[in-house]
Amino acid sequence: MVLSTELAQMKERLPEWLEASRALTAEGKTAAYIPELAKAPKEALGIHILNMNGESVSAGDCGLVFTMQSISKVFTLLLALMDNGEEVVFAKVGKEPTGDDFNSMLKLELVEPGIPFNPLINAGAIVISSLIHGATPEQKSERILRFFCELSGNETLGYNLDVCRSESATAHRNRSLAYFLKDNGVLDDDVEEVLDVYFHHCSVEVTCADLARMGLVLACGGKDPVTQKQLVPRRYVQIAKTFMMTCGMYNASGEFAIAAGLPAKSGVAGGIMTMVPGRLGIGVVGPALNSKGNSVAGVHLIETLSREFDWSMF
Amino acid sequence: MVLSTELAQMKERLPEWLEASRALTAEGKTAAYIPELAKAPKEALGIHILNMNGESVSAGDCGLVFTMQSISKVFTLLLALMDNGEEVVFAKVGKEPTGDDFNSMLKLELVEPGIPFNPLINAGAIVISSLIHGATPEQKSERILRFFCELSGNETLGYNLDVCRSESATAHRNRSLAYFLKDNGVLDDDVEEVLDVYFHHCSVEVTCADLARMGLVLACGGKDPVTQKQLVPRRYVQIAKTFMMTCGMYNASGEFAIAAGLPAKSGVAGGIMTMVPGRLGIGVVGPALNSKGNSVAGVHLIETLSREFDWSMF
Amino acid sequence: MVLSTELAQMKERLPEWLEASRALTAEGKTAAYIPELAKAPKEALGIHILNMNGESVSAGDCGLVFTMQSISKVFTLLLALMDNGEEVVFAKVGKEPTGDDFNSMLKLELVEPGIPFNPLINAGAIVISSLIHGATPEQKSERILRFFCELSGNETLGYNLDVCRSESATAHRNRSLAYFLKDNGVLDDDVEEVLDVYFHHCSVEVTCADLARMGLVLACGGKDPVTQKQLVPRRYVQIAKTFMMTCGMYNASGEFAIAAGLPAKSGVAGGIMTMVPGRLGIGVVGPALNSKGNSVAGVHLIETLSREFDWSMF
Amino acid sequence: MVLSTELAQMKERLPEWLEASRALTAEGKTAAYIPELAKAPKEALGIHILNMNGESVSAGDCGLVFTMQSISKVFTLLLALMDNGEEVVFAKVGKEPTGDDFNSMLKLELVEPGIPFNPLINAGAIVISSLIHGATPEQKSERILRFFCELSGNETLGYNLDVCRSESATAHRNRSLAYFLKDNGVLDDDVEEVLDVYFHHCSVEVTCADLARMGLVLACGGKDPVTQKQLVPRRYVQIAKTFMMTCGMYNASGEFAIAAGLPAKSGVAGGIMTMVPGRLGIGVVGPALNSKGNSVAGVHLIETLSREFDWSMF
Repeated sequence: MVLSTELAQMKERLPEWLEASRALTAEGKTAAYIPELAKAPKEALGIHILNMNGESVSAGDCGLVFTMQSISKVFTLLLALMDNGEEVVFAKVGKEPTGDDFNSMLKLELVEPGIPFNPLINAGAIVISSLIHGATPEQKSERILRFFCELSGNETLGYNLDVCRSESATAHRNRSLAYFLKDNGVLDDDVEEVLDVYFHHCSVEVTCADLARMGLVLACGGKDPVTQKQLVPRRYVQIAKTFMMTCGMYNASGEFAIAAGLPAKSGVAGGIMTMVPGRLGIGVVGPALNSKGNSVAGVHLIETLSREFDWSMF
Repeated sequence: MVLSTELAQMKERLPEWLEASRALTAEGKTAAYIPELAKAPKEALGIHILNMNGESVSAGDCGLVFTMQSISKVFTLLLALMDNGEEVVFAKVGKEPTGDDFNSMLKLELVEPGIPFNPLINAGAIVISSLIHGATPEQKSERILRFFCELSGNETLGYNLDVCRSESATAHRNRSLAYFLKDNGVLDDDVEEVLDVYFHHCSVEVTCADLARMGLVLACGGKDPVTQKQLVPRRYVQIAKTFMMTCGMYNASGEFAIAAGLPAKSGVAGGIMTMVPGRLGIGVVGPALNSKGNSVAGVHLIETLSREFDWSMF
Repeated sequence: MVLSTELAQMKERLPEWLEASRALTAEGKTAAYIPELAKAPKEALGIHILNMNGESVSAGDCGLVFTMQSISKVFTLLLALMDNGEEVVFAKVGKEPTGDDFNSMLKLELVEPGIPFNPLINAGAIVISSLIHGATPEQKSERILRFFCELSGNETLGYNLDVCRSESATAHRNRSLAYFLKDNGVLDDDVEEVLDVYFHHCSVEVTCADLARMGLVLACGGKDPVTQKQLVPRRYVQIAKTFMMTCGMYNASGEFAIAAGLPAKSGVAGGIMTMVPGRLGIGVVGPALNSKGNSVAGVHLIETLSREFDWSMF
Repeated sequence: MVLSTELAQMKERLPEWLEASRALTAEGKTAAYIPELAKAPKEALGIHILNMNGESVSAGDCGLVFTMQSISKVFTLLLALMDNGEEVVFAKVGKEPTGDDFNSMLKLELVEPGIPFNPLINAGAIVISSLIHGATPEQKSERILRFFCELSGNETLGYNLDVCRSESATAHRNRSLAYFLKDNGVLDDDVEEVLDVYFHHCSVEVTCADLARMGLVLACGGKDPVTQKQLVPRRYVQIAKTFMMTCGMYNASGEFAIAAGLPAKSGVAGGIMTMVPGRLGIGVVGPALNSKGNSVAGVHLIETLSREFDWSMF
């Protein structure tokens, strides 16, 4: 198969750029607060890029399997929107970047009406988990997993239950957030049941190829370019991509928007999902994180590609 | 029995001052956040004053039985100090007033090292509960209750389990605080077990006479003036009284110190325990609270007495 | 002259959409904190749209003259970048949205290293004013004004000195911000001299047509589509547009990004400058502001247009 | 003259305790933010204790001359109360400890109605300066200085103008506070004029003997024990002493209250004024400060004395 020109150019240069970025892993640290995540290979860096014709290039440790963590929040947001519509969702979660840490509680206490500022910080994602339809936590989790499978075109996605349990056992801050939300009247359900759903979708295991495929669906406005099936209403994808631009990279979202200019979402297992609108889906993994919680090498690699290929949307 | 001059004067004027203060109950509200407390008689106001000779005067609804709520925090602090000593206790709880609401989480997030600012705000009192010795929550609660009985000279003190359950069922904010503390490494025990102890000591039922007796023990440096038994080391009583002066009346402690000039501690069931050092123990109850969470009429009555009898320590 | 299809469609529907949006002015208020601004016509609403061929449509009160206020911050940022380069500028101003009010000082005190979070909040814009080259405040202001003239293609732009003086006389909060920045070591110059520059560029008077032309230059990556002259390096324009997306509409930037999906900047005189990348420059004015400080009718009108013509970048 | 027993005991032990405390100066630092203060002798420590009979003992560097700094705030509060009465003063300044740094602006932004929490933090003291009667800043300063002379019984008190100018030149944070207060409507006067008064009273030079005399007047309820003249109404002295207990030692007021149990006020030049109610006035100086801004050796020395002589009010 002959690669398109862009992918062919990428294929040639990718190994070099990847190694240059990999050097930065020495400055980062794997996530310490979830013990299972701390075990990840610190020097790893992998990337997978997929275009609308199904062509792909990859480099580095692209075979690494890792948990989605916060990347899953983009997709639970989509499912919550499909389940409830915009009005219900945005009565419980705001639309603004916060400038605070992803697990901060300051604005819940300080800013009326005490709802999370956006669905990509922890507080917001916990509320989103509570909005997923399903009679039990198991049914909710099952619906979320099937949705992830559909978007990734990978029916074999499943949980890393060691990570799920490790996170549940140590997630005191998330419990604190959830009880605060319950006190503010934003969370109706039982806290442990909501968190069970939340920890499960955070612990779904993927590879860079899975993220690239999921990103490509977003890049194509919710339509799977391979099957031509509209998996998510375009308006909801637009909303998700906007949030990825304004708050997808934790407290470094603004910086990343200026450097790369692409919608993206990172997770503390080192994954980053990004896309070039209308053209490419991209999955990256590099478990060494910078001080903001983003893959230090992954951010550098995406910024390099965006600069080299002039991908910024701005 | 002939009352001392001071008590005789008080007895004469007390009904008049009490009724003047009772008028303020119209401006207050019973605590809404614990459903059982909301049922308290809003217009009630009672007071009991006890001197070192065991003489007492009382007025108004002094027979009302109510739960200690935050007043209990003074005594769990004393027991925690007796169980652990100053060094252990103050490694986990600070000594400063906060200027924030009693259930605020701001400083836990903003100020290193993330320990509660003092033992009389909720976060601090929860940590104190965790420091009480005992193999199980039941044993801890039992030790606390016996300590309260000893200090009040009333062996019949017990819990209001309806209030205890009502508080436990709705205490999302306290759970949020406790999990935050656990995340900060300040709380070692299981959160629900610590809160079980906390809710139990908050729900111990007393009358104004009980509070007056407990306050008198503090006024006398830890020695029961009737039995001459030293129930608490004087240094720990000194610490407790200092905290009562700087942070005993929630976020209105400074104002009360200026108006009344006495160590005092209030609870959201409307109780206030205060004292005139070396002379009197005072228990007050008035369930209608002001916006700061203190008995609106109770505060007014104590301030009146302090002014009339020149009780301010300053 | 025959309008392009898009503009022709717009021209037909614009009056209807404008009147529908104008109805919202009843809910808004003119800026109260600068006395001169409070005098603006509350029910006014005007718009001017310009394409790359120099064709334009306009509607409503598009002849209204008003001061740029915060809209000017986009262009002083560009000039500061041209004068100093990225490294110098971003050593003194961050790249993140704040989630706080535009004149908030919280993060200056709470977040190390105490530099403004971005150049579009007041604190950031004041620092940017200090970075403009020029031996005196007058020279700096003169260079800024000439730059604005060049970008708008309008050599007659000038200050509204009544507004400038009115703002200077009442800008206690901006003085407070500036002295805080000076204490943090972020501002080297004399505070009053910096603020003199700041108040002057905020008080430059424009019409919607001027804003549309300035926005069109940004939409075209810094090149004036009429003269084909590259007025600003494309990279700096990219930076400015990214900031407009993440923090251009004060504390409602996230909401506007989701609703309209366009880079935009508002000012408290009621102006909004926005653009459709690569195609259109748009200037809007409507002095009645919503609670976030944005033109209530102007926001509605742009959101309507974006929805009708599918302009969102996402 | 034969010293009273207490003073005689003190005299004997004081040199030893002073040298033990002096050892702590190695851990402290002189105030860096006012250049003139940084020059003070870091290892100095002096104390002067005065009783109601006019007897005194002193030790160490008690001849050191230093500026009052924040200690002056106690006395401007008294003068403002005498000039305006309680109602006017407490409409503009609160009565609560803050738990924040002495120059913090957080609560001015976060807590309605945006007045300083108490008169001993910088924001509060600046408002108090504005309430002193006088047609001009010079007249206000003159009235303040005369009041200080009267209370200290020392007609020769004057300003250290080098310190005053040094502070004025670098007081960006105080200017920031003052403009914030002006924006909040708490400060009516011209900011520079108010600060001129503030910097002047902060720079009044004293010795430990002066502070001891001023403290003794407070210890005696406002009456000069030597002349028997009532210099300040007793109620105002009561208010001032209460503030000294709850917020006199910056953000370590609670800790000092527990350790020493005495009303006290510190200044960043290293002075501390404290008292034993009804008995002693005490002046201490030790320019090496701890991290909270209090004289590290001075605090230790007072705590030692309080423990040895059982001075705690609690």
